[in-house]
Amino acid sequence: MPRVSTDQLAARRRQILDGARRCFADHGYEGATVRRLETSTGLSRGAIFHYFRDKEALFLALAEEDARRMADVVAEQGLVQVMRELLDTARAADRGAPEDGPGNGGTPSDGAATDRSWLGTRLEVSRRLRTDPEFRGRWQAHSAALTAATRQRLERQAAAGALRDDVPVAVLAQYLELVLEGLVSHLAMGLPAGDLDAVLDVVENGVRAGADR
Amino acid sequence: MPRVSTDQLAARRRQILDGARRCFADHGYEGATVRRLETSTGLSRGAIFHYFRDKEALFLALAEEDARRMADVVAEQGLVQVMRELLDTARAADRGAPEDGPGNGGTPSDGAATDRSWLGTRLEVSRRLRTDPEFRGRWQAHSAALTAATRQRLERQAAAGALRDDVPVAVLAQYLELVLEGLVSHLAMGLPAGDLDAVLDVVENGVRAGADR
Repeated sequence: MPRVSTDQLAARRRQILDGARRCFADHGYEGATVRRLETSTGLSRGAIFHYFRDKEALFLALAEEDARRMADVVAEQGLVQVMRELLDTARAADRGAPEDGPGNGGTPSDGAATDRSWLGTRLEVSRRLRTDPEFRGRWQAHSAALTAATRQRLERQAAAGALRDDVPVAVLAQYLELVLEGLVSHLAMGLPAGDLDAVLDVVENGVRAGADR
Repeated sequence: MPRVSTDQLAARRRQILDGARRCFADHGYEGATVRRLETSTGLSRGAIFHYFRDKEALFLALAEEDARRMADVVAEQGLVQVMRELLDTARAADRGAPEDGPGNGGTPSDGAATDRSWLGTRLEVSRRLRTDPEFRGRWQAHSAALTAATRQRLERQAAAGALRDDVPVAVLAQYLELVLEGLVSHLAMGLPAGDLDAVLDVVENGVRAGADR
């Protein structure tokens, strides 16, 4: 077997992740069979599972990427901005068009990743979280980045006096995460994005200084 | 076949619903096999499916009951109270004890119905909502009662001057429903009920008069 450079390894890993992301988005977690993963990545199962132990490890790697990208958006612009981008992406998916709305610059991933199909795989993850403690542990480790970023941004905002100060930062962080869970669930079920921008305005104003009357 | 009274028919229907509720709570939607439904109801499959066309119809009948009971609580005490009761019930389920917390008087159903297992079946429903438009239609008809009750209560509160008036009632209703979705998803995934009371305080205060500073 010829030796390959680190760059080549990284490129191959990237190729697998991008193909797998499309596959999960199109077919859901259960529907993303090994055969379909081969087609979408353009690689053999041998090559795929040389890089990732199994389908779950591949899925968790994608989830981790998303969590990291979302954490970056959170750090820059806050969790509400992440939610606004989820809304934009769901709307773009409904139009069957690539994302073209405003504010998509920092979208957690490049298009298909956060569309409704992708959100749908989150529901399957949720089901599994209930019943598989080991999976729950691995998932939580990956989602911890988002929680930490949310907390840190709120603490910076609190220090700058931009946050309401009658409620502990930890509670505000939990509040925002609960709304995010609701939004993910709502969009994953295929319910309309509709007027949810106005709802997110309520959420955003509710954590700002001044919300404590 | 002997003729039976309307009372007897209602009692038999009740027996099936109560047994099926336990069965779905213990085993989830997929795990609630016909054999298990027979055991939990104490009736034959013939008897069960004389009253309900199929397992889905039985599940939807339970969902409809829950939606109606929740709508009653909403009408009396608001959607945030429904959420507080979901929290209490999840905590009681974690303790493995029957519900004994305060504020359980109006719990949507009698115990097992809203415990984590039951919430788990909601995740399976959510998955299915994505892919089965007919099922989505039937489910939405049943959940419409809750939406209507939420809207009506908010409109009464608005008329009484108890609600913030800088945001349309429709938006506040959507806001509360989104938080409920988040809470259901959170608890269904087996995540801790923890400090969510404080989060619900933020939500409740956020729709009240005065929240518009």
